[in-house]
Amino acid sequence: MKLVRFGAAGAEKPGLIDADGKVRDLSGVVPDIAGAVLGRDGLARLKALDPASLPLAPQDSRLGACVGSVGNFIAVGLNYADHAAESGMAVPAEPVLFNKAPSCIVGPDDTVLIPRGSQKTDWEVELAVVIGERASYVSEADALDYVAGFCVCNDVSERAYQIEGTGQWMKGKGCPTFGPLGPWLVTPDEIDTANLAMTLKLNGETVQNGSTGTMVFKVPHLVHYISQFMILEPGDVITTGTPPGVGMGMKPPRYLKPGDRMEVSIEGLGTQRQLVAATA
Amino acid sequence: MKLVRFGAAGAEKPGLIDADGKVRDLSGVVPDIAGAVLGRDGLARLKALDPASLPLAPQDSRLGACVGSVGNFIAVGLNYADHAAESGMAVPAEPVLFNKAPSCIVGPDDTVLIPRGSQKTDWEVELAVVIGERASYVSEADALDYVAGFCVCNDVSERAYQIEGTGQWMKGKGCPTFGPLGPWLVTPDEIDTANLAMTLKLNGETVQNGSTGTMVFKVPHLVHYISQFMILEPGDVITTGTPPGVGMGMKPPRYLKPGDRMEVSIEGLGTQRQLVAATA
Repeated sequence: MKLVRFGAAGAEKPGLIDADGKVRDLSGVVPDIAGAVLGRDGLARLKALDPASLPLAPQDSRLGACVGSVGNFIAVGLNYADHAAESGMAVPAEPVLFNKAPSCIVGPDDTVLIPRGSQKTDWEVELAVVIGERASYVSEADALDYVAGFCVCNDVSERAYQIEGTGQWMKGKGCPTFGPLGPWLVTPDEIDTANLAMTLKLNGETVQNGSTGTMVFKVPHLVHYISQFMILEPGDVITTGTPPGVGMGMKPPRYLKPGDRMEVSIEGLGTQRQLVAATA
Repeated sequence: MKLVRFGAAGAEKPGLIDADGKVRDLSGVVPDIAGAVLGRDGLARLKALDPASLPLAPQDSRLGACVGSVGNFIAVGLNYADHAAESGMAVPAEPVLFNKAPSCIVGPDDTVLIPRGSQKTDWEVELAVVIGERASYVSEADALDYVAGFCVCNDVSERAYQIEGTGQWMKGKGCPTFGPLGPWLVTPDEIDTANLAMTLKLNGETVQNGSTGTMVFKVPHLVHYISQFMILEPGDVITTGTPPGVGMGMKPPRYLKPGDRMEVSIEGLGTQRQLVAATA
């Protein structure tokens, strides 16, 4: 099942993608793609529906983030060995965790804003995990039972705010529009995330070209690990790190500027397309 | 105005404290002390009520966290010069920011749990700021216009998870029950936070004894500063750092053990009383 949220920003409706790739309106069935709807029972209920029986969404509806009411937006740092190397950092012995402000979440094709005064706004294609059931002290073997699905995340990052200031990384990770999620939330029965191609194109040029196959700490381990430190709630999002090819790692470094266009894809999870603009 | 949330955990009702110190039930007026209720119009509406016209809450009701649906729980590190010294760290040139998982938030008198296997669970009395209006790029002069009120926070911290692991601090800050908030949310018209006595007693012994007067970065600067990096939403909480006297700073260090009792007070904002227990 591919779940979406469509409509104007802040007033998105829940939907799903039918066999023809069209958006069907779920707003008569559930209030949002959020909270308890993401649990095992909630998803089973949606899966039992006949998509053809649901109204079509208006054509060319804007897509919002594919999950609503995110309570905690957790990110994993340096989770690809090659990316750690390009960042000049060692692969950590355990996952490095930081937060993105949930207020940075936007739709997959919304404009990404360069913060006022920023010189070092960067891109990161990532596999994001959406939690479906409350998870505390879960084992690695059981971890996937707590996952509602997967989506693309562009973990947009301001490197000066992240690294050059007085700490911690979250300062450069949660600026407005720094968290495009979607287009779709794909449920685990439809995708195996072990070895998915990941690309990020900047103005048509492929700058990131990797695979989830080279992740250091895999999804079951991450859910298990994070649940030892905090309760994960339905609708929480874990974005799992980026492969090589970010702007900071280029020689010389290269950062986003107004007018740039990003195309952010993961095999089976769809493509995001973002225009870059200055903050008004 | 002193606002509270009372009732069973997860099913709290909104309330306010009347002139006799009794809890009055606001559930006929607003759904929760959360979101838009915390805005200027929302608070003005509550202030216009006659408390005596509201039903009394059941006597001895449990108090929940004084704010619901917290979207982002932001914390400021090393914001008291003496505490930075006892932690062996320099006072930073700019605020150090990190996150606490919102899922760690509990009521002011709820039991605080030591995480499984933890050896270094510590206490921190802090002044917390609750955001009332959406704030992005606000000036220091205007910052208090975006604040709904203030409350006590015990920024419970696991020092090994926070500092000795592979980063970042959030690993040791958001464990279950690590965020008691309350007892009351006190609106800014009733309190000046410039110079409030702060104490934390452990089993009756005063271990922290400070004042908000020695904060390095004050509330208006913090709201301004954080709003340069992320959008603050109504219901977001900023806890602003702790004065000296945490367990990690003692010689030898001293940490919480099951059966300990904490009493956490800030002048004008009330007192929290927590039993410490092991995680089941």
